[in-house]
Amino acid sequence: MSRQKRVAVVIAKNFEDIEATDPIRVIEEAGAEAILIGIERGKVEGKKGAVLEARLTFDEIDATTEASFDALVIPGGGAPENLRIHQPAVDFTTRFVASGKPVASICHGPQLLISAKVLNGRTTTCVNKIRDDVVNAGANYVDKPLVVDGNLISSRTPADMAVFNQAIVDAIS
Amino acid sequence: MSRQKRVAVVIAKNFEDIEATDPIRVIEEAGAEAILIGIERGKVEGKKGAVLEARLTFDEIDATTEASFDALVIPGGGAPENLRIHQPAVDFTTRFVASGKPVASICHGPQLLISAKVLNGRTTTCVNKIRDDVVNAGANYVDKPLVVDGNLISSRTPADMAVFNQAIVDAIS
Repeated sequence: MSRQKRVAVVIAKNFEDIEATDPIRVIEEAGAEAILIGIERGKVEGKKGAVLEARLTFDEIDATTEASFDALVIPGGGAPENLRIHQPAVDFTTRFVASGKPVASICHGPQLLISAKVLNGRTTTCVNKIRDDVVNAGANYVDKPLVVDGNLISSRTPADMAVFNQAIVDAIS
Repeated sequence: MSRQKRVAVVIAKNFEDIEATDPIRVIEEAGAEAILIGIERGKVEGKKGAVLEARLTFDEIDATTEASFDALVIPGGGAPENLRIHQPAVDFTTRFVASGKPVASICHGPQLLISAKVLNGRTTTCVNKIRDDVVNAGANYVDKPLVVDGNLISSRTPADMAVFNQAIVDAIS
């Protein structure tokens, strides 16, 4: 029997609640573990009041821990713009995308990918409010519920949760 | 005696309250008129609950009205990302910057300038959360309370309100 899969979920203040809580739920329902990573350890509040607990910080991730993650999920809301100004979060994201392992982002999530400088030449979707920024980062923006380009998985808004959740589960199955 | 100066202030849902209300106050204290422009006419609520009323929409601005404006102010918060997906707001901004008249943006305000494609080769500041986006739009980002590059005036956050307000007043004096 293979070991339990581990999925890193990066959170920060003002995450879009369902874009974090729903992936965490389906990851756990699939028998995998969701590891919540934050700028600091402890409780983090979403835009609409959901509270999640970061049990690991970016500064604490060593090479062994990083290698143990099978996928990365980047929820949206106001969290990505908080993560993108925290250099350890940016560096982690850059390395993770380069590793080739699945990276799923939704809504404002690609803001972190822009700052990680990994979108050039890649195809992605995102919330339309940041579409011009992903294009300026060199990405090919498409307006679809789910976009998969190599290891990059992306969706637009909470309205796309069902297909986004399924894509995450597929990526770790 | 010269005619009363007219300053366009563009607003949308979730504007950063003080970044709109403070410039409006100093514009009026300077004896000028602040004309609030919205995606729709009517009341618009800021992030922290301030309510402003848009008395003109982008669709209603004809050439004569546009020519009557002496300056443009773009408050931050969540408003710029709502305005940047409303094409008449984007087109208005593009034309206004091209006119050479003063354009003052603060915090997330430059998101509208990015979508208006007017930042290439220009120097600006903004909230650090979108600095990578202004750089990808071709701008030279500097981290200062106030940046003036030709007709572009910019500040970073509500902490810079005093110098931002003064720069607006100076621009219409």
